[in-house]
Amino acid sequence: MNHSENQTVPDGVMAAVLTPLAADGGVDHRRFADHCRWLLASGCDGLAVLGTTGEANSFSVEERLTLLDRLVESGVPPASLLPGTGCCALPDTVRLTRKAVTLGAKGVLMLPPFYYKTVTDDGLFAAFAEVIEAVGDDRLRVYLYHFPQMSGVPLRAPLIERLLARYPTIVAGMKDSSGDLANMTANAAAFPGFRVLSGSDELLWPLIQAGGAGCITAVCNVAAPLAARVVAAFRSDDPAAAESAHEPLAAVRAAIARYPLSAALKEIMARHTGDAGWLRLRPPLTPLPVDDAAALATALDRLGFAPAPWSGS
Amino acid sequence: MNHSENQTVPDGVMAAVLTPLAADGGVDHRRFADHCRWLLASGCDGLAVLGTTGEANSFSVEERLTLLDRLVESGVPPASLLPGTGCCALPDTVRLTRKAVTLGAKGVLMLPPFYYKTVTDDGLFAAFAEVIEAVGDDRLRVYLYHFPQMSGVPLRAPLIERLLARYPTIVAGMKDSSGDLANMTANAAAFPGFRVLSGSDELLWPLIQAGGAGCITAVCNVAAPLAARVVAAFRSDDPAAAESAHEPLAAVRAAIARYPLSAALKEIMARHTGDAGWLRLRPPLTPLPVDDAAALATALDRLGFAPAPWSGS
Repeated sequence: MNHSENQTVPDGVMAAVLTPLAADGGVDHRRFADHCRWLLASGCDGLAVLGTTGEANSFSVEERLTLLDRLVESGVPPASLLPGTGCCALPDTVRLTRKAVTLGAKGVLMLPPFYYKTVTDDGLFAAFAEVIEAVGDDRLRVYLYHFPQMSGVPLRAPLIERLLARYPTIVAGMKDSSGDLANMTANAAAFPGFRVLSGSDELLWPLIQAGGAGCITAVCNVAAPLAARVVAAFRSDDPAAAESAHEPLAAVRAAIARYPLSAALKEIMARHTGDAGWLRLRPPLTPLPVDDAAALATALDRLGFAPAPWSGS
Repeated sequence: MNHSENQTVPDGVMAAVLTPLAADGGVDHRRFADHCRWLLASGCDGLAVLGTTGEANSFSVEERLTLLDRLVESGVPPASLLPGTGCCALPDTVRLTRKAVTLGAKGVLMLPPFYYKTVTDDGLFAAFAEVIEAVGDDRLRVYLYHFPQMSGVPLRAPLIERLLARYPTIVAGMKDSSGDLANMTANAAAFPGFRVLSGSDELLWPLIQAGGAGCITAVCNVAAPLAARVVAAFRSDDPAAAESAHEPLAAVRAAIARYPLSAALKEIMARHTGDAGWLRLRPPLTPLPVDDAAALATALDRLGFAPAPWSGS
């Protein structure tokens, strides 16, 4: 029996896209567009640019606006983009969100304002509402970004409920980087149509079985084909195939996640493309120490893992 | 015996200045300048504008630059200012820091880039060094801002040591909002000439006895005269007088710190000046609930506390 028509994974596989830097510390726009094209060609359904992995908060608003403009000018389809737009200051969040909508992005991934901790749900609701009202565009689709370990500001179910009641079309889903599968499945069950995406590769398979919408992960910068196989097998109602893709994906994730993700993934890209420019990160992030880089390469070799053949220039 | 020549408190009392908002949510520049003048007239040695209490990270860089320009244009002495300039994105920190130096500020209060957690001291050193080198001005004085509960990024002694070794004149001190007196006194003892300021009013008195440089606190928005009495008594080598000023200051602090500080202090200013405009806060912060506001007023009345007579328009 084939249930494939029921096996919806609306968003599928998205990479939390790395941001390559030029020698002067600015964004390397050419390399970035190459990377985005390569990701779309190697299994990504969408591109969550300017997220945590992409060091978004290390760039000024102007740098981020320019990055989006240049990426779309380079021919990457705007409908594939889910840019991160959530800043501490709401005027900044509004500018970035408006830009994403204007460019025709699929949606935006929105951190709450994250400087103040222990804020109230009233305050978080007011923050998201202020941005949505200021952008004032029915095309806007907001994916809430729940990453309490980094933001210090969790987004809990009662807040989601209030936002969905007020903005049922605009509030589209959530990226959940908490690593807490129970939280993800509870939100997917509680809010039908609300798209819950895992920030952790190893939770993609259990989450989509529980009604999740896909994943947005750092590791998909290099392992998108594995994640895409999980989703394709699930859509084809072939759990054995999904399981057999899930296992190497989870193993690769585990090997990489022993290290800070942006540094580890830039290390892998530098090694894979032969381009040491990939190693650059903005402070406060730092490249992997040499010993860690070697250990990571050894671990991935032992898993028999290699990224898809590089297609960039 | 009078030891007053030895009783140095180099920075004294600074308020972590509130930022009043206009009806449109922007900075109310006139009310802000009035508040700053009132603080200088009622016991503050300096003004730490654009800090945590001042909701700095809720304003865009452009709003913060304008705030500084307008404040100095209004006649508030730039040498009294210690603006907060630390952002997640180093280009933003550089712009704000350069502006502060250009205006003639006493120094800047610099948060580390605070989005990424569990970063290395190498990364934090690189971040501070990049800003200092980019500003490239010998007049710059950096006060590091240690507030791990809010930033999630502690600044520990080995980092201070490295920064002082490289920038002995520019790295001037630290505001320590951890509430950990042992950390403050250890840094004051370890690094002679490094100015350690308490972020907590009740630690002003013990810290200056241990060689600290003063305080930068939220509560000094309303209680600066009490803190100034502590410092004046210490400078006059009159510990009994210092103790008798310390006690009400600590009590007022305790009463206010039961609530979120910016909201509680704006409530007190609204009540004190009769100007409800003071109640405005930027999301995600929210005004005190009515019951809390009443309880706070009662608690301060019981302590016999009132701010200095308001001198603003």
